[in-house]
Amino acid sequence: MVDTAPRTKEHRVPNVDAEVDAQLAKSSGDASVDVESLGRQLLGTWADVRLAARELYKDPAFHNIPGLSLDEQRARTLGQLHLLVDRNAVHRAFPKSLGGGEDNGGNITGFEELVTADPSLQIKSGVQWGLFASAVLQLGTEYHHNKFLPDIMNLKVPGAFAMTETGHGSDVASVATTATYDPETEEFVINTPFRGAWKEYLGNAGLHGKAATVFAQLITGGVNHGVHCFYTPIRDDNGVFLPGVGGEDDGLKGGLNGIDNGRLHFSNVRVPRTNLLNKYGDVAEDGTYTSPIDSPGRRFFTMLGTLVQGRVSLDGSAAAVSAMALSIAITYGNQRRQFTAASETDEEVILDYQRHQRRLLPRLATTYAMNFAHDEFLVKFDSVFSGAADTDEDRQDLETLAASLKPLSTWAALDILQEAREACGGAGFIAENRLVGLRADLDIYVTFEGDNNVLLQLVAKRLLTDYSARFKDADSGALARYVVVSTAAKAYHGFGLRRLGQSVADFGSTGRSVQTLRETNAQRELLTDRVETMVAEIAQRLRPASRLSRADAAALFNSQQNELIEAARAHAELLQWEAFTRALDKVEDAGTKQVITWLRDVFGLGLLEKHLAWYLIHGRLSPQRAQAVSLYVDRLLTRLRPHAQDLVDAFGYAPEHLRATIATGVEAERQNEAREYYRAQRASGTAPTMEKSQKKSKR
Amino acid sequence: MVDTAPRTKEHRVPNVDAEVDAQLAKSSGDASVDVESLGRQLLGTWADVRLAARELYKDPAFHNIPGLSLDEQRARTLGQLHLLVDRNAVHRAFPKSLGGGEDNGGNITGFEELVTADPSLQIKSGVQWGLFASAVLQLGTEYHHNKFLPDIMNLKVPGAFAMTETGHGSDVASVATTATYDPETEEFVINTPFRGAWKEYLGNAGLHGKAATVFAQLITGGVNHGVHCFYTPIRDDNGVFLPGVGGEDDGLKGGLNGIDNGRLHFSNVRVPRTNLLNKYGDVAEDGTYTSPIDSPGRRFFTMLGTLVQGRVSLDGSAAAVSAMALSIAITYGNQRRQFTAASETDEEVILDYQRHQRRLLPRLATTYAMNFAHDEFLVKFDSVFSGAADTDEDRQDLETLAASLKPLSTWAALDILQEAREACGGAGFIAENRLVGLRADLDIYVTFEGDNNVLLQLVAKRLLTDYSARFKDADSGALARYVVVSTAAKAYHGFGLRRLGQSVADFGSTGRSVQTLRETNAQRELLTDRVETMVAEIAQRLRPASRLSRADAAALFNSQQNELIEAARAHAELLQWEAFTRALDKVEDAGTKQVITWLRDVFGLGLLEKHLAWYLIHGRLSPQRAQAVSLYVDRLLTRLRPHAQDLVDAFGYAPEHLRATIATGVEAERQNEAREYYRAQRASGTAPTMEKSQKKSKR
Repeated sequence: MVDTAPRTKEHRVPNVDAEVDAQLAKSSGDASVDVESLGRQLLGTWADVRLAARELYKDPAFHNIPGLSLDEQRARTLGQLHLLVDRNAVHRAFPKSLGGGEDNGGNITGFEELVTADPSLQIKSGVQWGLFASAVLQLGTEYHHNKFLPDIMNLKVPGAFAMTETGHGSDVASVATTATYDPETEEFVINTPFRGAWKEYLGNAGLHGKAATVFAQLITGGVNHGVHCFYTPIRDDNGVFLPGVGGEDDGLKGGLNGIDNGRLHFSNVRVPRTNLLNKYGDVAEDGTYTSPIDSPGRRFFTMLGTLVQGRVSLDGSAAAVSAMALSIAITYGNQRRQFTAASETDEEVILDYQRHQRRLLPRLATTYAMNFAHDEFLVKFDSVFSGAADTDEDRQDLETLAASLKPLSTWAALDILQEAREACGGAGFIAENRLVGLRADLDIYVTFEGDNNVLLQLVAKRLLTDYSARFKDADSGALARYVVVSTAAKAYHGFGLRRLGQSVADFGSTGRSVQTLRETNAQRELLTDRVETMVAEIAQRLRPASRLSRADAAALFNSQQNELIEAARAHAELLQWEAFTRALDKVEDAGTKQVITWLRDVFGLGLLEKHLAWYLIHGRLSPQRAQAVSLYVDRLLTRLRPHAQDLVDAFGYAPEHLRATIATGVEAERQNEAREYYRAQRASGTAPTMEKSQKKSKR
Repeated sequence: MVDTAPRTKEHRVPNVDAEVDAQLAKSSGDASVDVESLGRQLLGTWADVRLAARELYKDPAFHNIPGLSLDEQRARTLGQLHLLVDRNAVHRAFPKSLGGGEDNGGNITGFEELVTADPSLQIKSGVQWGLFASAVLQLGTEYHHNKFLPDIMNLKVPGAFAMTETGHGSDVASVATTATYDPETEEFVINTPFRGAWKEYLGNAGLHGKAATVFAQLITGGVNHGVHCFYTPIRDDNGVFLPGVGGEDDGLKGGLNGIDNGRLHFSNVRVPRTNLLNKYGDVAEDGTYTSPIDSPGRRFFTMLGTLVQGRVSLDGSAAAVSAMALSIAITYGNQRRQFTAASETDEEVILDYQRHQRRLLPRLATTYAMNFAHDEFLVKFDSVFSGAADTDEDRQDLETLAASLKPLSTWAALDILQEAREACGGAGFIAENRLVGLRADLDIYVTFEGDNNVLLQLVAKRLLTDYSARFKDADSGALARYVVVSTAAKAYHGFGLRRLGQSVADFGSTGRSVQTLRETNAQRELLTDRVETMVAEIAQRLRPASRLSRADAAALFNSQQNELIEAARAHAELLQWEAFTRALDKVEDAGTKQVITWLRDVFGLGLLEKHLAWYLIHGRLSPQRAQAVSLYVDRLLTRLRPHAQDLVDAFGYAPEHLRATIATGVEAERQNEAREYYRAQRASGTAPTMEKSQKKSKR
């Protein structure tokens, strides 16, 4: 594989030097994966809960059955929800006084594993106990807990979380439903003023819901105090809408059809004053409004913030499904053979093809990053919700973490499911091999619980706020100098070198380029630098905004929107990389550490490769070093390839979780049978002569 | 939007110069789309057939009904196939003597439009008349045409195209089914030797098929003459398998569930000698094999080549579905409002957001490229299949075109459907808005009729072959010099300038950078140069292969596999760009030409942006010019934005084709109702005071 052809400097296509190869080969000898200990680490902080949940969800009673009709699937899913109650699987987050466990991290952990059984079951139980019940728990007070929670917990009252409206998806502050206080009767009057204000896409609203937590503009004494939540009965015990309540079924969706999504509208529906979930805002009998939080803006975000757990669990579920998809595709790719290359008779195992490795192994690295990042996210969530570390700043950090990680992991899950499906060819398209069903179900994860693009904008705004806080009193000249100084500093640090310096330093040695890129601190510096520089550049471009009219400022901001979202993505990628690196530090077994280091490097260098143009344009990588990135990733993939099966086995999913025929070993059996057939035929001399070889021999 | 902050040279974030803005603004005044004439151009060479097909498929009898059970959907689709026969819609390609039209281009054109009605209907009719019938027509001779085609054409005999085996997907040459000639009885004995040799994934095999064109290794007199095709009855009129034939239903799939895919196996099933489709190879009564094509390899590829029309039609269907998806998402994005930015009261139309433009408009440019490239592809196909230009080279070019365009367009269709779905938020996930159903159905297009990755490898091999043909007698030194010389030549051409030269030329003027990039020849040169350089570099790296053992050569080749596929992709992108540019030349209306020029530039610069790191590493673009690429794309998108609706309207799909509730104007109605409600409330003074403004006024 040595390339000896002469090259000009410009066109030099560097090979990774013998030096690097030797190093890799040396360490490679020790590389091996201790599947058990790595598996334990991957289970995360609530490992016992996770294992128990996995055990429970091996039961076929919880599994989805592809191809049921809409009605059948909905009925089955509702039945499974009752089964969850019976198995005491869904009450971990509730108050101990009501039979719960007050265990937030454990609750989400168990909930995430439901995705292995059926995403519809997961999301429908998420609607019931994660959204509907959580609204009562987090936004209500003791009265509501005692009055409403027991029947919600035991599913006597299935309910809808009525936040989204047809006209307002991610912009919750603008919902148009009103709840106007009537002091005469001490009731709130809930009303839908026009078609766009219908509540939309609510799980349980289509069919099963008997009540809803309705988000509406609270109006009392002619003043709108912003969005609050009201416990509102919607159907009687016969499933008939109560007076003033109406709705529609959303019907068939692209996936998650076990959930009866629907629309609701209210025509002056009256609920008692005490049905206002009043933790963050209350109305007295006489109509006086009070709130422990003075600022309407902060109050709104505090209320919404209590519902962050949806994003936590979607992040975890996306990571889990990605791991399942790769378990299926890599197991199959490790058995399937196709085309002969190296020999006349033996077809190649498809995972030995470079392209196949390029398709699956970097995504495996991403999946590890997602899993490790998710555990840290879960720990943060638990510490805030348990009250252990629950300052405003903690809540803000948690929100930012959620808005960063959920978009990346849910998008990655779709990408991974699709690549896994394609890597399994037509077999991947058959429902019994799970990949298409999981993809269909997970599709909506990228736009619900906050549209991914909208969430990343929130992150970007936080990054800008943090940035300007650091430069509150600085004029634009100072800002410009900051960028220069920070770059100069980086040049001296030895990373983020100016192009010329790098070229001189690396001259003639791709090995030296690679050597640098392998260093943890070099990866960190490059990834961090990109986030900081992008934010600084955008902040500079936005500086004139304060002097502009609202419309012009909006136009200026809009001209940076795409770049803002990219900056937020860069930040989220850095969070994942940092989590992966911290997890790597915790790996104790030396052989495993070697393999996981390669995997982390594939993740880190994969990010550099993805954004290579940025690093080149900004002079952070010389062309030579930039070219070394892809070459080194290729080399790492060949090192990782023998460990691919171990790396997916460490996720620990049993056949009862994967339930994909092609990942059970049938392909290996078929291949062995075919190879044995031809071997025996050759041995017995009964194989027909090939026309081609016959012709050759005649010549 | 002017950025006045001082910048260092390195960190300069150039704005597109006033000069360029002025130019854009000047031309922008004339820019307008003549939807009708552009629409005519988009209809392509067989415009009349396309219009007639669109008219026919407005009939709800042809439309899919989401949510049917598997059995219902299959039955409905079969019924629709009979309806196609009744309407005389599917016989254009057949011999005139049998009632056909001998019109290959028109046949594919009409077939493509079926995708608007239902992809299942399209693919099931493709199985019947595009694969099963085509095998008889293209591989058989007059005897077979007269004997078998009439009942295939009128659907009395639904049939399966039995090529793929469980163990061999894209590697058709390795199928393991055998057809051994028995001179005693003058029959072929068709046999499945092991499980992996079961025929797999055959449309019509699960349920409806009565016969199959079975591909098997033809063995006579102890010699294997390679893969040939045999007409084989499989079920009696009661739908019961004939003796020796067995099979399984593939069951539920990720989409296309109107088609009864299934598996078949044969236990020494005997068919008459004359059932061999004998155009390219025949066996005499005594067992003597003859063929008009001496080389078994060439014979095999000639036989497979006759079946290229599947790839032609998938390319066209992918382009059509992409156009439909963007018609839906852009129409909706042009009506939907979300978040206030520029004013207190008016929410923004979401297509006015930069990010939304970035998500949809470059994909619109790609869709135009795909549609224009497809028409050229169709013309080429027709000229080969009509015999007008049917040399070996023509057939090879057609194969390369098919293997280039089908992967890009089918992948793009999935990407576009998904982005359109996400851009419509939750509404995009509801089945009645079509996007999820189309995506589920189109998913398999990327791996059937040739796995996309395998097809691109075929293209890459062709590129390498062409390259080495040019350097047949050259040693590696000459090759290296070629690379140097060609680069030097480019430097003198004024494009692909060396970095330093560009920086000097463009110094201080992003406008000048942009100016260059806008030029058609500059885009062509950059795109062409990349293909040529990639191929030359890979060829150099592969040169040692001829001196290596088979295994080592395979390893060397494998180390370049990813890069090879990327080179093939670059080549295919260039083909699309060239087709777009030729189509642009044909636009006559000046205002339309301006808009389509921008759109072509977005496509061309989008390709440069995607591969920017390559251009930087290879010194083809200076960092400054590279940075100008994205900035200029952003500017172009704001220019294109007002024409977005016209550009999708020009595709010409009627509501009966799109059938997406959100694209009917219902969103605009809802938005207008809401805005009118708030306007009236403000006018009447009945709007509640906002707590926020109340607090402000108290201060």
